[in-house]
Amino acid sequence: MTQPTEKVTLADVARLAGVGVGTASRALSGSAKVAPETRAKVLEVADRLHYVVSPDAASLASGRTGRVALVVPHLSRWFFGEVSEGIHAALRDADLDLLLYPVGAVRDRHAFFERLPARRKVDAVIVVAFPVDEDERRRLELMGVHIVAAGGQSAAYPFVRIDDYAAGRQAVDHLTFLGHRRIAMLEARDPDQPDLKPPRSDAYYAALAENGIEVDPDLVVVSDWGGEEGARAMSRLLSLRHPPTAVYAHSDEVALGAVRTIRRAGLEIPRDISVVGIDDHPLAALTDLTTVRQPAFEQGVRAAEMLLGLLAGAPDVDQSVTLPTELVVRGSTAPPRR
Amino acid sequence: MTQPTEKVTLADVARLAGVGVGTASRALSGSAKVAPETRAKVLEVADRLHYVVSPDAASLASGRTGRVALVVPHLSRWFFGEVSEGIHAALRDADLDLLLYPVGAVRDRHAFFERLPARRKVDAVIVVAFPVDEDERRRLELMGVHIVAAGGQSAAYPFVRIDDYAAGRQAVDHLTFLGHRRIAMLEARDPDQPDLKPPRSDAYYAALAENGIEVDPDLVVVSDWGGEEGARAMSRLLSLRHPPTAVYAHSDEVALGAVRTIRRAGLEIPRDISVVGIDDHPLAALTDLTTVRQPAFEQGVRAAEMLLGLLAGAPDVDQSVTLPTELVVRGSTAPPRR
Repeated sequence: MTQPTEKVTLADVARLAGVGVGTASRALSGSAKVAPETRAKVLEVADRLHYVVSPDAASLASGRTGRVALVVPHLSRWFFGEVSEGIHAALRDADLDLLLYPVGAVRDRHAFFERLPARRKVDAVIVVAFPVDEDERRRLELMGVHIVAAGGQSAAYPFVRIDDYAAGRQAVDHLTFLGHRRIAMLEARDPDQPDLKPPRSDAYYAALAENGIEVDPDLVVVSDWGGEEGARAMSRLLSLRHPPTAVYAHSDEVALGAVRTIRRAGLEIPRDISVVGIDDHPLAALTDLTTVRQPAFEQGVRAAEMLLGLLAGAPDVDQSVTLPTELVVRGSTAPPRR
Repeated sequence: MTQPTEKVTLADVARLAGVGVGTASRALSGSAKVAPETRAKVLEVADRLHYVVSPDAASLASGRTGRVALVVPHLSRWFFGEVSEGIHAALRDADLDLLLYPVGAVRDRHAFFERLPARRKVDAVIVVAFPVDEDERRRLELMGVHIVAAGGQSAAYPFVRIDDYAAGRQAVDHLTFLGHRRIAMLEARDPDQPDLKPPRSDAYYAALAENGIEVDPDLVVVSDWGGEEGARAMSRLLSLRHPPTAVYAHSDEVALGAVRTIRRAGLEIPRDISVVGIDDHPLAALTDLTTVRQPAFEQGVRAAEMLLGLLAGAPDVDQSVTLPTELVVRGSTAPPRR
């Protein structure tokens, strides 16, 4: 690769842009004190001259890195990708860069926090839908690194979430309203806290109790978050002497796995078995799946906005935001056959 | 937030770790010249003391930023998320950080390259499945910034891709082999180059010609890459006096949209109409869709490995890698009804 042949200085850029060196420097560092037109002119000149400013030198002077860490378990799953896009959309105009840390396995999540403190690379961390333990949080605090959670909650740092209990109730109440009494649950556990009973499960037990329906433990199958796991869990339900007339799945991907198993068994949805999920994954609309919609992109946007408030030292940053969910009735649910 | 109350120096870290200051510095900067055990010890001490090293200061000395830009159109779509995870998997042990730039709209892609040159933030750029024009590429070169493409091809910089023509042939040849002659195509165009006829379309025309099937222009509908677009395009096909007996879609998401429209019309798949896609999206397995599998994660891994070679100055870095695709027959294709 070739390198620039002559050294262009900041003074050259300033002179050609018709501004002072201080203004040119502030324009290149993205300071808000420079008028947009001035900034555009300076950037245009810098660009034309192939002037290379070191943002690292600039940030060392300000004590800020200008970077935010996005720590996200599974980029290739819809929810995480959508939240990440929302975060980026809210940060892009703030001239902050996003450092990406995919942390698929639980041990990767802890490794991220273990390695971070020795290398202050970011001003803030956004974690997507997994919990940070108290020790990890305190280390960030000691370094002056802010933390916000998108999709999840914590007593110790600000978060944006949905009300998982309410979402679960919207799904199960829909099934009981239709007249179902033999309702199965495909329960997805938090891989970080497998012993914790999820609020989406609490909703199931509460809805059944309120409707005087006794819980049949055979109808509750613990699955993982993927579609193949949902398909396997549904097979277990179809092996029962009295299979359910309706299935409540903790996510759309799990629900779509169940749908495949039901169809392979030659049964019709919703005539023989109703299915409802949670998410409103784009493919839920394509597969006509009834579900409870959660705003994933919006959770990312709101979390990033809270972070911008923290970085700006705003006094009134929300500590928690809960976004609403809503039932979306499609073709996978109906009253049970008489 | 509280701040560390006493200032820990690099000398403190070195003393407690039992190494020289130079070794401690190299260990903290991730130099390969330090033995893993030594590095682990230094990191452990630095961590315990809450020592905060500025990686920016270290990188200014070496002239490298230690960062790679990942420029990706749609994080929330499976292919892009999967490629991104592959890239991260290959870079994680190289101690390089990934700066994330989602660039959904075409103008965002150009804006990324326009803004980059004034601020050298990265040593290299990986673009996922979109073309970089010659002017943009040359600006990167002038700055000494490497570029590699994952999913896509270029004469000007190294790339990893699949053979889109071959993938299309696998899909259409499967339909002609089954005996279909009235085969429709849901054609997804590259949003950056809408006038370019895609290789996946060339495959369609070539396969029909080889089988002596005349092209019916009514059977080719240009759609976009999403499922809803596929659903709408399929509606157009069903409004024909003689609808097709088989549909070839340029992606699984487009194919799944077509599947919904076909089912809503009361038709059965594959009895009335066969459908084949390209990708092997995880939901293709769940919805029993016949498709052509492309290795998305692997494209990311290979692109990142090429990048590591370029950064290390290796003399024998591949300029192009083409990964194989394969037909995956599931339940959405069958011979036409007699």
